[in-house]
Amino acid sequence: MGFRYDIRLSGSGGQGIILMGIILAEAVGIYEGRHVSQTQSYGPEARGGSSKAEVVISDTEIDYPKAMRLDMLLAMNQKSCDDYYMDLKPEGILIVDSTFVKQLPIPRAFQIPFTKIAREKLGREMVANIVALGAISKLTDIVSPKAIEQAVLARVPKGTEKLNRDALNAGMAAAVKAKKNILPFMRSEREDEDT
Amino acid sequence: MGFRYDIRLSGSGGQGIILMGIILAEAVGIYEGRHVSQTQSYGPEARGGSSKAEVVISDTEIDYPKAMRLDMLLAMNQKSCDDYYMDLKPEGILIVDSTFVKQLPIPRAFQIPFTKIAREKLGREMVANIVALGAISKLTDIVSPKAIEQAVLARVPKGTEKLNRDALNAGMAAAVKAKKNILPFMRSEREDEDT
Repeated sequence: MGFRYDIRLSGSGGQGIILMGIILAEAVGIYEGRHVSQTQSYGPEARGGSSKAEVVISDTEIDYPKAMRLDMLLAMNQKSCDDYYMDLKPEGILIVDSTFVKQLPIPRAFQIPFTKIAREKLGREMVANIVALGAISKLTDIVSPKAIEQAVLARVPKGTEKLNRDALNAGMAAAVKAKKNILPFMRSEREDEDT
Repeated sequence: MGFRYDIRLSGSGGQGIILMGIILAEAVGIYEGRHVSQTQSYGPEARGGSSKAEVVISDTEIDYPKAMRLDMLLAMNQKSCDDYYMDLKPEGILIVDSTFVKQLPIPRAFQIPFTKIAREKLGREMVANIVALGAISKLTDIVSPKAIEQAVLARVPKGTEKLNRDALNAGMAAAVKAKKNILPFMRSEREDEDT
């Protein structure tokens, strides 16, 4: 089987989860030219106010577009983190909005306060999803910062380009910091092996 | 196997096809409380400027969210009509934007000039997709006018509620007219049988 990368983006209704899924899929599909499927499913529980969007990337045509074992989970609130972390592969990446996710179900996770950054650095809480997209482009190899910027600018309302570009950049900077914070844990493991 | 209804919405990039898919899925999933999956797929051909969104409705959980044999195809331009009409079931419904689709691949189709209506009656060509959603709610039994209105109003920018409600209503009115235009064909078939 070829390369396949399964992503679930999750949070509350109103956090812009589905728009994130579309932008991420368009960044990879249109601007990187890879095979991508993007799916949202609703059941009778949909009125509960939770929201999730799935993105599957592959090097061949995607026959089964639902995410299965996750390579990446983004949880923008505590409930979605609790509900979905078990679907992560052992080597999968967990990214949480630490503004709302206070209890980590697994020790290793990228904790970035997307909503707090959007509110305090950008003055608009609603761009927390774009901050998160910026972070994803730095925390994974699935999409380049350039492709994500093209896809964001093609989808956001005219006149909000600067705000959204700033949001992406803030997310990228926060991701670089979060990566450094998570590294000592890996380094000390490596050091333990060496001694 | 239970009830399953497969829809493909298709047209050019910029016609708001993916937003249509999301609104239709949310109308059925959140406001009607049924099982729905909504998917878009991109391949290396995605740069070509075509756009498609699929919606699958079921009375049980949807295992395979890609549309297969279509119960409904909406084609907002000639190319998507030509590319996809063969995926229709024999009893499937074809709905075309007759502003752009001039050659029908099958004789029986609902022809409604969504873009012309949006441009001339509403003064905003960009709401052609909302006009089409209004028509879909009248041409099929899958979503009620009330649910589609709730879903549209939850997704469109604040301040555009009246424009979008007018667009829905214009689409519904045009659909009622299109249904009448298509009926004589059925009636004459019936009459033939009677004589």
